[in-house]
Amino acid sequence: MVGNSSTAVAMDLPANVVLVDVGPRDGLQNEARPVSTDAKVALVDGLARAGVPRIEVTSFVSPRAVPQMADAAEVMAGIERRPGTEYAVLVPNARGLERAVLAGADIVNVVVCASETFNQRNVKMSVAESIEQTGEIVQLADEAGIRVTAVLGTAFHCPFEGPVPIERVVDLVGQFADLGIIEVTLADTIGAADPGQVFAYATAVRRRRRDLDLGIHLHDTRGLGLANALAAIQAGMGRLEASVGGIGGCPFAPKATGNVCSEDLVFMLEAMGVSTGIDLERLIDVARGLPEIVGHPVPSRMLAVGPPVPLPVAMS
Amino acid sequence: MVGNSSTAVAMDLPANVVLVDVGPRDGLQNEARPVSTDAKVALVDGLARAGVPRIEVTSFVSPRAVPQMADAAEVMAGIERRPGTEYAVLVPNARGLERAVLAGADIVNVVVCASETFNQRNVKMSVAESIEQTGEIVQLADEAGIRVTAVLGTAFHCPFEGPVPIERVVDLVGQFADLGIIEVTLADTIGAADPGQVFAYATAVRRRRRDLDLGIHLHDTRGLGLANALAAIQAGMGRLEASVGGIGGCPFAPKATGNVCSEDLVFMLEAMGVSTGIDLERLIDVARGLPEIVGHPVPSRMLAVGPPVPLPVAMS
Repeated sequence: MVGNSSTAVAMDLPANVVLVDVGPRDGLQNEARPVSTDAKVALVDGLARAGVPRIEVTSFVSPRAVPQMADAAEVMAGIERRPGTEYAVLVPNARGLERAVLAGADIVNVVVCASETFNQRNVKMSVAESIEQTGEIVQLADEAGIRVTAVLGTAFHCPFEGPVPIERVVDLVGQFADLGIIEVTLADTIGAADPGQVFAYATAVRRRRRDLDLGIHLHDTRGLGLANALAAIQAGMGRLEASVGGIGGCPFAPKATGNVCSEDLVFMLEAMGVSTGIDLERLIDVARGLPEIVGHPVPSRMLAVGPPVPLPVAMS
Repeated sequence: MVGNSSTAVAMDLPANVVLVDVGPRDGLQNEARPVSTDAKVALVDGLARAGVPRIEVTSFVSPRAVPQMADAAEVMAGIERRPGTEYAVLVPNARGLERAVLAGADIVNVVVCASETFNQRNVKMSVAESIEQTGEIVQLADEAGIRVTAVLGTAFHCPFEGPVPIERVVDLVGQFADLGIIEVTLADTIGAADPGQVFAYATAVRRRRRDLDLGIHLHDTRGLGLANALAAIQAGMGRLEASVGGIGGCPFAPKATGNVCSEDLVFMLEAMGVSTGIDLERLIDVARGLPEIVGHPVPSRMLAVGPPVPLPVAMS
């Protein structure tokens, strides 16, 4: 806001949020072209130097299932561990957790999908079986002294079943909490959520379990990523997952853009006075290298246009 | 929202809003390639048939200044006047108003820029002189029985002066109101506003003048168009200006996208249960013809990906 008019009413927003850059994992995983280990390491290190507080570095999945992530251990070994940055990895099972522990991950992300159909197709297990396996991973992670973030995939919309009922999301998040999980991320896996849905779901979950650290994983498939981010922070979600450059895609929509773009999100948040701790110019510099790495232009608006000059008051 | 959980809290949103498609004017005006009169007429008629309640059809400016709008009278003569659709045109002065009246426009949009520097460069007049001229146009329009919407250009950010103080916006809107103008549109001319600013400015203006019909003209230059639309309706703005296909651009940012995309905005609003009266599929059909008309791809996400199937509950 500019000026101090007595008639001005500020939007009710948090003082700061945690941005998680998932570009090295969710972004690159959806890119067809193989990316070298060196380029991945440089990308993660660039994000850390820009001040990104948490980075999803890679995933310890089967190299046959996801060839792009076959060098997960090498990437983790190659990065420079910056104090103040949390390095998260995705693990699908106990075997993945063991590899993550050996690699020195700070946090493991474990995915369970809210949609029965999607979960079956994704991991050939029922949702109940995935929850049970998550419990085993939590136990192993506790023993290894590593934190677990539970990701509820297709938390809003499933490409097979359609909209996911809010009661189901509240119930499944409750099941995560019963396993002792503090950090839960609702994932708009296919980029089909709208801000009203994000607000309602986040509010419902937070009312039921006030002790949770609740985040959202955002896709910009239908251009609603930033509007959904706004609704998320209005509903008290403190953690937002985005990807540098807006890289990535969606296997269910061939022409889809990827995750919501980190630098566009940082611009929006910082312009509104919501602190991210991230240096926008440095983040844009990291994005600048992406078209060469992924072999095509990236949807980042900050890369194309940049912030307005002079800057908005909250950023100046 | 899906389901009726007792813990669910819906976002506070209006039941309906008026979407104004400015594609035929602001969109095409920023397109380099000349568009035929027939294509313009077909575009306007397509929008009306899709249920768009108001269309900015053209502008009665100097053909030398804006060659793309040289056929303004022919476009107005060619369109099929659909009952229930309001046909607006932009006029820069009394001469433009006369032409608009002859053409049978329902509404004339008159622009004054909040930034002194921008207004001088745009129309070679001071802001005070532009306000005075607006008063003359209002008088002539009253005599002709035609409505005036005052557009406050660069209401948030000026590319020369930077952020526009909120008191200045409140003051200038007050000057419009003193001229008897009921409808005022705050224009994010260069697409530099953020949702926090939109909310604060809209709230401040509405608190000062509760009798206004307040709208916002949105550009998606930095990808914040839909988030700004969300903030606008949260602040009680009932009228949103967008362009079909997201066509257009910004003379101050060569790589900028255009106005916020109408069909993406309709998708967001309808998914949230905010009624627009527009048939989304028909609107996407109109957008489908645009790449051929403007000679390049358009940024519309709905055109690329479409709404999720099955549809969100509010749309099904």
